[in-house]
Amino acid sequence: MTLPANVRIVEVGPRDGLQNEKALSTDTKVALINALSASGLQTIEAGSFVSPKWVPQMAESHDVMQRIQRQNGVTYTALTPNLKGFELAMAAGADEVAVFGAASEAFSQKNINCSIAESIERFEPVVAAANKAGKKVRGYVSCVLGCPYQGDVDIAEVVRVSRLLHELGCYEISLGDTIGVGTPLHAQRMLGAVAEHIPMPQLALHFHNTYGQALANLAACLPMGIAVIDSAVAGLGGCPYAKGASGNVATEDVLYMLQGMGIETGVDLDAIVNAGHAVCEALGQSPRSNVSLARLATANT
Amino acid sequence: MTLPANVRIVEVGPRDGLQNEKALSTDTKVALINALSASGLQTIEAGSFVSPKWVPQMAESHDVMQRIQRQNGVTYTALTPNLKGFELAMAAGADEVAVFGAASEAFSQKNINCSIAESIERFEPVVAAANKAGKKVRGYVSCVLGCPYQGDVDIAEVVRVSRLLHELGCYEISLGDTIGVGTPLHAQRMLGAVAEHIPMPQLALHFHNTYGQALANLAACLPMGIAVIDSAVAGLGGCPYAKGASGNVATEDVLYMLQGMGIETGVDLDAIVNAGHAVCEALGQSPRSNVSLARLATANT
Repeated sequence: MTLPANVRIVEVGPRDGLQNEKALSTDTKVALINALSASGLQTIEAGSFVSPKWVPQMAESHDVMQRIQRQNGVTYTALTPNLKGFELAMAAGADEVAVFGAASEAFSQKNINCSIAESIERFEPVVAAANKAGKKVRGYVSCVLGCPYQGDVDIAEVVRVSRLLHELGCYEISLGDTIGVGTPLHAQRMLGAVAEHIPMPQLALHFHNTYGQALANLAACLPMGIAVIDSAVAGLGGCPYAKGASGNVATEDVLYMLQGMGIETGVDLDAIVNAGHAVCEALGQSPRSNVSLARLATANT
Repeated sequence: MTLPANVRIVEVGPRDGLQNEKALSTDTKVALINALSASGLQTIEAGSFVSPKWVPQMAESHDVMQRIQRQNGVTYTALTPNLKGFELAMAAGADEVAVFGAASEAFSQKNINCSIAESIERFEPVVAAANKAGKKVRGYVSCVLGCPYQGDVDIAEVVRVSRLLHELGCYEISLGDTIGVGTPLHAQRMLGAVAEHIPMPQLALHFHNTYGQALANLAACLPMGIAVIDSAVAGLGGCPYAKGASGNVATEDVLYMLQGMGIETGVDLDAIVNAGHAVCEALGQSPRSNVSLARLATANT
């Protein structure tokens, strides 16, 4: 059990976060991504090329990706559910793409309207096209610690789907507790089982904070060597399966914990706090980050 | 490293929580404690016998303790800063009392208007009187992971003050991250250092969630064998040193985590969620518990 010396943060606020908030203007999204780009982040999920019929919040992803000021050293990624989405992402200038699968058959059916097996088939041409274009593909596995429809999700199923995406050619598998129901031992067992088949450096944890457990789950998994963490500035996102509940774990809170543990990220916490305040002002809501609220409160005290 | 099979929750909402919220009526406090009493909790901190000049929110502690419906098997405790406070607590019918020290000299001076050494002297007659009355005394050590005035707090100082309280006769030492600044490794190091001198079963963790780290810190310390956790229903309390920030770690969130880890508490989570909703309604605010918010949200979805 050794902590990683460095963790790479994958900032998913502009995509996984904002797709579950009210729609913002293209200007506001561009300003958010530009602010995040200046923080030292290496990876920013900047858009999604899913049908705007399903996710209207992401309808301007092309314009957003075209208008951001790209920083050297930052990879701007986009979610691409199928070949058409991949082509749109390429036209918009995405550096990297991601496909979104599920470890729960019920979730796959309800969320992406096909079986797990069909979703993998649908990803094959995306990976093939990405290989041809010299782009890397990230694979999301959702519902790794529970499903809003079927409840419990077998760890063996998480392993199976993760391996399918890995064998398909995804360079990194992001393990998502989509509804934030997991607890520390469960998270450790799930990660340990997947890491028996996929090297730890190719795994990421993507935890939501719906039940307040995300940081505890990350803290439990860090000594196992996990070194890539997905998080969202200001805890953007909410939970579509529990309206009003918390969303993605907040980047600010993850950074604060990692700093306290002596783990390097290269990200400037203050820059993230400021970016979060600005986007929350535009959304007309408070940041869902305790660190952000505490910083604001001590500044005002 | 083995997880405890059982954890005892010390519910501090009615005291440490409510003393940092706006003042509630005696009726509301009595209703809260009665609701908590029916949840399976073994220990409820029900009041404080500090001068009402300093803590007006606790002015009715006598009436509260007299009017609650006592449940068999529940210990109702009270904070007693000095002999006068102890006598008032006894007159009100407290089953157990607690003294409140600090690991930070600056905090002791500003918060209880005396040096650490003087505070220990002041506690001596309390412990002597309690021994005579056959009552147990709990010792709080505040600022164990940081101080709002001096910043860093030396772990050696936490150990020193904890030992002083233990040698004085406190049966349990509650280690408080009063301003919620700690992170997992720091919490582990602090607990490990104290546990070299005081047996783990006589230690409790009392973490605030100001920077969102409380559950992560608890998760990191549970495998060390800590088996007593202080928490507050609905995360009551706020932070007097960062107005608007989070307070005590929420009992609901701790219970959810422990349940998920297979650790028994004997406490009914739903009963705590309901008690928290009721008191938050009286306070006119939302619960500061993610579990509570998620339960409410899924019930409404």
